[in-house]
Amino acid sequence: MNSSAPIGVFDSGVGGLTVVREIMRQIPNERIVYFGDTARVPYGSKSKETVTRYSAQIVRFLKQQDVKAIVVACNTASAYAMDEIERESEIPVIGVVKPGAKAAIDATKNGRIGVIGTEATIGSQIYTRYIQEQDNSAEVMGKACPLFVPLVEEGLLNDPVTDEIAMRYLSSLIDSGIDTLILGCTHYPLIRAAVGRVMGEGVTLVNPAYETARELRELLETEDMLNRSKPGLGVDRYRFFVSDAAEKFIRFANSIIKYGILSAKIINIEEY
Amino acid sequence: MNSSAPIGVFDSGVGGLTVVREIMRQIPNERIVYFGDTARVPYGSKSKETVTRYSAQIVRFLKQQDVKAIVVACNTASAYAMDEIERESEIPVIGVVKPGAKAAIDATKNGRIGVIGTEATIGSQIYTRYIQEQDNSAEVMGKACPLFVPLVEEGLLNDPVTDEIAMRYLSSLIDSGIDTLILGCTHYPLIRAAVGRVMGEGVTLVNPAYETARELRELLETEDMLNRSKPGLGVDRYRFFVSDAAEKFIRFANSIIKYGILSAKIINIEEY
Repeated sequence: MNSSAPIGVFDSGVGGLTVVREIMRQIPNERIVYFGDTARVPYGSKSKETVTRYSAQIVRFLKQQDVKAIVVACNTASAYAMDEIERESEIPVIGVVKPGAKAAIDATKNGRIGVIGTEATIGSQIYTRYIQEQDNSAEVMGKACPLFVPLVEEGLLNDPVTDEIAMRYLSSLIDSGIDTLILGCTHYPLIRAAVGRVMGEGVTLVNPAYETARELRELLETEDMLNRSKPGLGVDRYRFFVSDAAEKFIRFANSIIKYGILSAKIINIEEY
Repeated sequence: MNSSAPIGVFDSGVGGLTVVREIMRQIPNERIVYFGDTARVPYGSKSKETVTRYSAQIVRFLKQQDVKAIVVACNTASAYAMDEIERESEIPVIGVVKPGAKAAIDATKNGRIGVIGTEATIGSQIYTRYIQEQDNSAEVMGKACPLFVPLVEEGLLNDPVTDEIAMRYLSSLIDSGIDTLILGCTHYPLIRAAVGRVMGEGVTLVNPAYETARELRELLETEDMLNRSKPGLGVDRYRFFVSDAAEKFIRFANSIIKYGILSAKIINIEEY
């Protein structure tokens, strides 16, 4: 495998760009091919079968782009489809759930960890499983927060309505005495401040994006696949693909990532 | 065409069931085949090309069910794909936009009409076009309300948060002096009370579902296609299909429709 090949990153839509942002920060020499499934977003309210079928199509598309590794930058896809993706892929695959679970175990002092995410991610209990595999004394409390993604997409990042909804979703987690909370959906780092206000300073917020980028860097080092040469600033360095609504994607992307994103190509993902 | 054949009704998800409810009330003898595209919901934030492709697949599926007419019970699909669907279909097709526009013209006294809907429906200006075709002196004010659908799906039908969001979305419509407001998305009749509280008693709320069912009845009468025999209560009277998450669909459906919905079949709509 060519170490100058790009990393493939995918998400149900724009949220995975918070993972791209971390990869750009931590391993800036890497080239990236991003796919956002904006025609079929969201995944978080859909079934395991559907999310797995969608993820398999995207992995086929990314492999055609000759990526050297794949990052599943979507908690729902990581929760539902990792086994299937790993089985079908000869190249390394990293999801966001395992790194997020690991970071939470490192962060907690009282062994009580909260997780917030989509209905799918929370219903799958995947964080609980990964955490308890590594520390079977840990207690994990999950809470689905279906309105957080629409609130983020509506731009209500610092808004009394978001705080009110956060208060309702999070009050049971506060009562349960957790000291660590995993932001188990790639949109949630964008309302980190609101979640922090509600949870209070005593609770550490874990963003799996950071830990995922770190694990990716370690993996590439171990496998001697880091890109040693600094790529030029041409269009080929970062490429963005979506299944719909490219203009809207570009606007949102530029609000998350400082690198000026000028174009995103629409592909028909159902053909893969 | 066999007059005892069913009516085909489709929507991006569950919202179209508010139209089904009206059809059941107004022409109870009719059989219905419903399709909800729960694997690709929502449509309201997606492009015209994508919504048209999805709609065409669904029309092909419904035609295989030998329906005698098709109701596009989704404002976004009606806004984007009606021309294409009518071109491809030999059977009568009714959308929700034209009947909704007509009802608003009948209702307004001061000629100032508001429309709320998804980003797609409002951006298409389809209501404005239909209204002004019939009354070119009418003024039409549109406002996209992206959070209404997630709020409905989260069950916050009568809730201070929904009222607060409604106040923000609707304040410019109140200021503009409209006396009639079209609920231009099939989810919105479910928060009719909240919208009514914000708009006040002086504003008539128009639910296109009612007018759509009335137009369907008239069409079937004119074409002599009304089902004259009362069908039995067997499973064949109302049939429900979805592209994902049947259990969740059934729960939601039973909260909208009094007829006890026991099953919904999952099909892979991408194959049509």
